[in-house]
Amino acid sequence: MSRIELKKDERLDDLIHSNLQIIQSSNHFAFAIDAVLLADFVEIKPKDRVIDLGTGTGVIPLLLTGKNDPDQIVGIEIQVKLAEMAQRSVLYNKLEDVIEIKKADIRQLKEVFAAESFDVVVSNPPYLPLGQGKVNPDSSIALARHELKVKLEDVVEISSYLVRYKGRVSYIYRVERLDELLEVMNYYNLQPKYMRLIQPEGDKACNLVLVTGIKGANSGLEVDKPLIIYRDNGEYTEEVLKIYYGEDYNYKGKGS
Amino acid sequence: MSRIELKKDERLDDLIHSNLQIIQSSNHFAFAIDAVLLADFVEIKPKDRVIDLGTGTGVIPLLLTGKNDPDQIVGIEIQVKLAEMAQRSVLYNKLEDVIEIKKADIRQLKEVFAAESFDVVVSNPPYLPLGQGKVNPDSSIALARHELKVKLEDVVEISSYLVRYKGRVSYIYRVERLDELLEVMNYYNLQPKYMRLIQPEGDKACNLVLVTGIKGANSGLEVDKPLIIYRDNGEYTEEVLKIYYGEDYNYKGKGS
Repeated sequence: MSRIELKKDERLDDLIHSNLQIIQSSNHFAFAIDAVLLADFVEIKPKDRVIDLGTGTGVIPLLLTGKNDPDQIVGIEIQVKLAEMAQRSVLYNKLEDVIEIKKADIRQLKEVFAAESFDVVVSNPPYLPLGQGKVNPDSSIALARHELKVKLEDVVEISSYLVRYKGRVSYIYRVERLDELLEVMNYYNLQPKYMRLIQPEGDKACNLVLVTGIKGANSGLEVDKPLIIYRDNGEYTEEVLKIYYGEDYNYKGKGS
Repeated sequence: MSRIELKKDERLDDLIHSNLQIIQSSNHFAFAIDAVLLADFVEIKPKDRVIDLGTGTGVIPLLLTGKNDPDQIVGIEIQVKLAEMAQRSVLYNKLEDVIEIKKADIRQLKEVFAAESFDVVVSNPPYLPLGQGKVNPDSSIALARHELKVKLEDVVEISSYLVRYKGRVSYIYRVERLDELLEVMNYYNLQPKYMRLIQPEGDKACNLVLVTGIKGANSGLEVDKPLIIYRDNGEYTEEVLKIYYGEDYNYKGKGS
């Protein structure tokens, strides 16, 4: 065990195909496949400056350190406990020269960073669950929708502020709000250029979508074949296994 | 041969799984799979009034007569020659009680139809090919985009005028402009509710998209698994064969 201490509710988990470990807590959401897929989807070029909006326990910054040698990755998290866990994971993995975790509200980042100071922005924006408000659909669904739209728009607006001209912004989001996501991206000059839908299984409808926008780009959206998560037998598809364990499948559990 | 005459450049083609035939011409585009997929995708309920914007040789109205007994299907076509061919196909198939072909510019339909006088609007809107204007990308691509956007917006605007509250509007379009399509639909109060991407093959990127919007609906988009056209061996997939030849596969060529 290193000098980094784990609290009572915390554990140290292997971070998929990297040699990294991440501190997670039974009291908070552990990182989900969403974050892994987004980290795989986002394109990083050498020396890129990257920012992750709503980083949670820092899973995306940790995963991105293995991609094409970025210069700096900033993870923004509003919840103190999560930001502090993320910071300890950074120290544990000795990545403090690359990753900076900041406890901040993304709506106040204009006071922290200059405009266009990042090459890449990534985010797994929050969304409200659908299907609520059946009792009084007209008022409560409208309210939920409005809240959601404002939250999504906050993320997209600050993304557009932070990213340089022709820089990339990648999100993972629920397909139920795909139309709103694309519209808000366009509104903030983040032309959607590349999209990939995610299906839980080959025979099921799509539930998530990965989108990359490029600031100031011409229109023209490329839509890749969908990414399918599970095979019929309930195991991960080959593509997901490669994302988790690397191209060569040589993943071995580290033991605990 | 019935009383309906074919001109020198024309031929009479079987219309997939229906018992209908369609007049086509070697001087004009024959109907493509786009129209067949759209006709299959659109939901028709008994007694619906339906309008097809840019009907060409009338393939979509002809195909829709076999779906759930619509009350009336109007096909709008601006090109005289095509409208006239479509009209003869209607007469040939003795469908003049159901299908009405009108030679008209869709931008002038407000003078022809009352607002909200249709239950369903369908269209395979025109689009400009991408990849032009490489020589002077900034001006010519921008121009192409602008023209395209106006044309698309014309279609969506008049669709919203023609369809009743909670009525359905279905399009097939290029994925390159999916973001614009969804945005313009939202702008004209046609909430995108159901979407399906089309892949030429399972390993290839998506090239077309089917979208149904509902006028005045709440937000929330459902994205089905993609529709794949060809198998690895170059034959149609089972799903496309069912669309072409019906659920029971009992298609037999009629001879000529």
